[in-house]
Amino acid sequence: MPVNLPPLKARQLLPVSGVSLGIAEAAIKQPGRRDLLLMTLASGTRVAGVFTRNRFCAAPVIVAKRALASGVPARALVVNTGCANAGTGEDGMARAERVCDELALLLGCQRNEVLPFSTGVIMEELPVERIVAALPRCVAGLREDNWLDAAHAIMTTDTQAKGACRQIHINGETITVTGIAKGAGMIHPDMATMLAFIATDAVVRGDVLESCVRHAANRSFNRITVDGDTSTNDAFMLMATGQARMAEIDDTGSFEFKVLREAVSEVAIELAQAIVRDGEGATKFISITVERGQDDAECRKAAFAIAHSPLVKTALFASDPNPGRILAAIGRSGVDDVSRLKLYLGDVLVAENGARSARYRDQDGRRAVSGPDIAIRAVLGRGDASLTVWTCDFSHDYVRINAEYRS
Amino acid sequence: MPVNLPPLKARQLLPVSGVSLGIAEAAIKQPGRRDLLLMTLASGTRVAGVFTRNRFCAAPVIVAKRALASGVPARALVVNTGCANAGTGEDGMARAERVCDELALLLGCQRNEVLPFSTGVIMEELPVERIVAALPRCVAGLREDNWLDAAHAIMTTDTQAKGACRQIHINGETITVTGIAKGAGMIHPDMATMLAFIATDAVVRGDVLESCVRHAANRSFNRITVDGDTSTNDAFMLMATGQARMAEIDDTGSFEFKVLREAVSEVAIELAQAIVRDGEGATKFISITVERGQDDAECRKAAFAIAHSPLVKTALFASDPNPGRILAAIGRSGVDDVSRLKLYLGDVLVAENGARSARYRDQDGRRAVSGPDIAIRAVLGRGDASLTVWTCDFSHDYVRINAEYRS
Repeated sequence: MPVNLPPLKARQLLPVSGVSLGIAEAAIKQPGRRDLLLMTLASGTRVAGVFTRNRFCAAPVIVAKRALASGVPARALVVNTGCANAGTGEDGMARAERVCDELALLLGCQRNEVLPFSTGVIMEELPVERIVAALPRCVAGLREDNWLDAAHAIMTTDTQAKGACRQIHINGETITVTGIAKGAGMIHPDMATMLAFIATDAVVRGDVLESCVRHAANRSFNRITVDGDTSTNDAFMLMATGQARMAEIDDTGSFEFKVLREAVSEVAIELAQAIVRDGEGATKFISITVERGQDDAECRKAAFAIAHSPLVKTALFASDPNPGRILAAIGRSGVDDVSRLKLYLGDVLVAENGARSARYRDQDGRRAVSGPDIAIRAVLGRGDASLTVWTCDFSHDYVRINAEYRS
Repeated sequence: MPVNLPPLKARQLLPVSGVSLGIAEAAIKQPGRRDLLLMTLASGTRVAGVFTRNRFCAAPVIVAKRALASGVPARALVVNTGCANAGTGEDGMARAERVCDELALLLGCQRNEVLPFSTGVIMEELPVERIVAALPRCVAGLREDNWLDAAHAIMTTDTQAKGACRQIHINGETITVTGIAKGAGMIHPDMATMLAFIATDAVVRGDVLESCVRHAANRSFNRITVDGDTSTNDAFMLMATGQARMAEIDDTGSFEFKVLREAVSEVAIELAQAIVRDGEGATKFISITVERGQDDAECRKAAFAIAHSPLVKTALFASDPNPGRILAAIGRSGVDDVSRLKLYLGDVLVAENGARSARYRDQDGRRAVSGPDIAIRAVLGRGDASLTVWTCDFSHDYVRINAEYRS
């Protein structure tokens, strides 16, 4: 059960002119499950993306990065779940390319106009024949209004489909931004085991779109963690189909760009938070804000030290504030001086001047962490930087899910 | 149930001339439990130690470091469990000093000849009156031959007492090295929630003893992790009573020093491994060796990335090799090039040249991780450095123990 994440409805995800989606059951890991997604993009669509920094990046990541770097505009994305095609060497590359070749044939385009994405078990062979056999069904089912089905087709251990949508108005024209994502373990900044695809019909120059995707990633997917593991397959793709009637956004200083960037960031943050809310075994959604740090890097270190601490996460699973564990995490995070630190759980002041507050009573702390949404706020008193990250607790189910993942 | 850790017997821990131990039940966290240890040291004993680097270091750590730095030789160590006296500010300092004052009165020595140590829950008040009331019972019970009782008195969530002993011969004289330690969660390099006390009757100059304790810590306690958390209270103390009939070891280049350093390191490694074998919820003991790295730092990063990965640890809990998770951990560890990597589970070659080995069969991998002791070996093919760290798996019981710790 995800934490405070209402089920996604089809009507929440508005179509984006120029993007069609087709799904199929390809029996990649097991039969009877939607596990293959095709997204086709109107001619003229610009695509920008950020990818995993894991050195073992998966074959499809290498292929997709190469295709993007070629400068040829992408016409299609193909996403499979059930197999990550990572740690598979030359054979994995050949299999990813084979999927692109077959899809290019079906669509009448070139191989490097197709970007492949995979998620699932690492170090297993991609069942390319079953994928190729299912591609015509994806093509036959292409529609603009099935973002919800697409969100379902990319799930792995997710218990719920994840999507978000915003509409903005630029010079009288309504612009849509719609996105889907999958989690749910191996979630860590830089990036996570996550795939996220956000599309807009806005008209945006390629380099400006790049700036937009980096900005949104840094405020969303790079601020979440479930377990500190970084996947081999992460990708966050932003597509601008250019179908809206508007002048091209070609200046990162323009008002139009900022409006679009804000909408894309909001969609990305909603998707990122949904990933955490549906984190493996999650029973609590935890916002961790570090304020008045020297710089972003310091705030980030402190926030993630708390977010990654299994001791903090297991205590919160038990609705036990155990604030000493939070202090200990900050203390080992690399923050030089903790003598002016104030720590809050919700609105409850727990510690000040680096020690337990005289006013703090344990029952107040317990009340602050009793609900499904928990806010931790650490005020360092060292500068003006501030930053928020999101994580979930560590439960019995996290262990069960990950122990049984391949069974 | 610890992993392959036979119960400690009293006769395994030989007395060290010049060290006496007294224990008591002080009802610090709960009644009916040995929770207070006094160690007295013969006049002339040299003491060296390494302490937590957590910025929230506990009050007793500050007091002990200050006393050591004063240059006055320590005459006694007092250790309580049940309360860490960390995150307690000025009041915590006063309480730690009060314990030292009262003990100094009882022993007829100065306050800064007493070193205090605490372990247990963070951010709670040290029940100093109950400790002071129990100190006379510790003094009355002082004996040289109760190291096993001492090992019991410093336990927190440990399920088993931890001790180790070596004897060596230096110029015909038998030298004893005996140590005890406690874990068992918040275990991480630099250091861990752990207290370790090793004593020897060797005659060693102070600065040479410092070198010995750092060497031993770097090969033992700084190479273990249970959960990646670093405690506020960690300390590893090495005491040389000088009671043996031998010339003082005053040269770190001497043969005698190397013999002693080796014995101390062996005791420290045995204690460190015992901490991991009794790690919270542990069902597997995992040795992770990274070979042919560019330097120690690279090997260390890769080894700890594997050791800290909840995904690796939960898979091994299920006796599932899931080697892709190990590759993913190495890939995000900061190792620049993984193209020549070989990965072994026990003797089974799993991956080579950065990808799954053609010879690898999953049943071989499963066999390699089926027992309680698991060896992971990653050969980077980048240089001549090599390093081993030890960790345990992540089980249902880890979550249970840490969720219920304060309940």
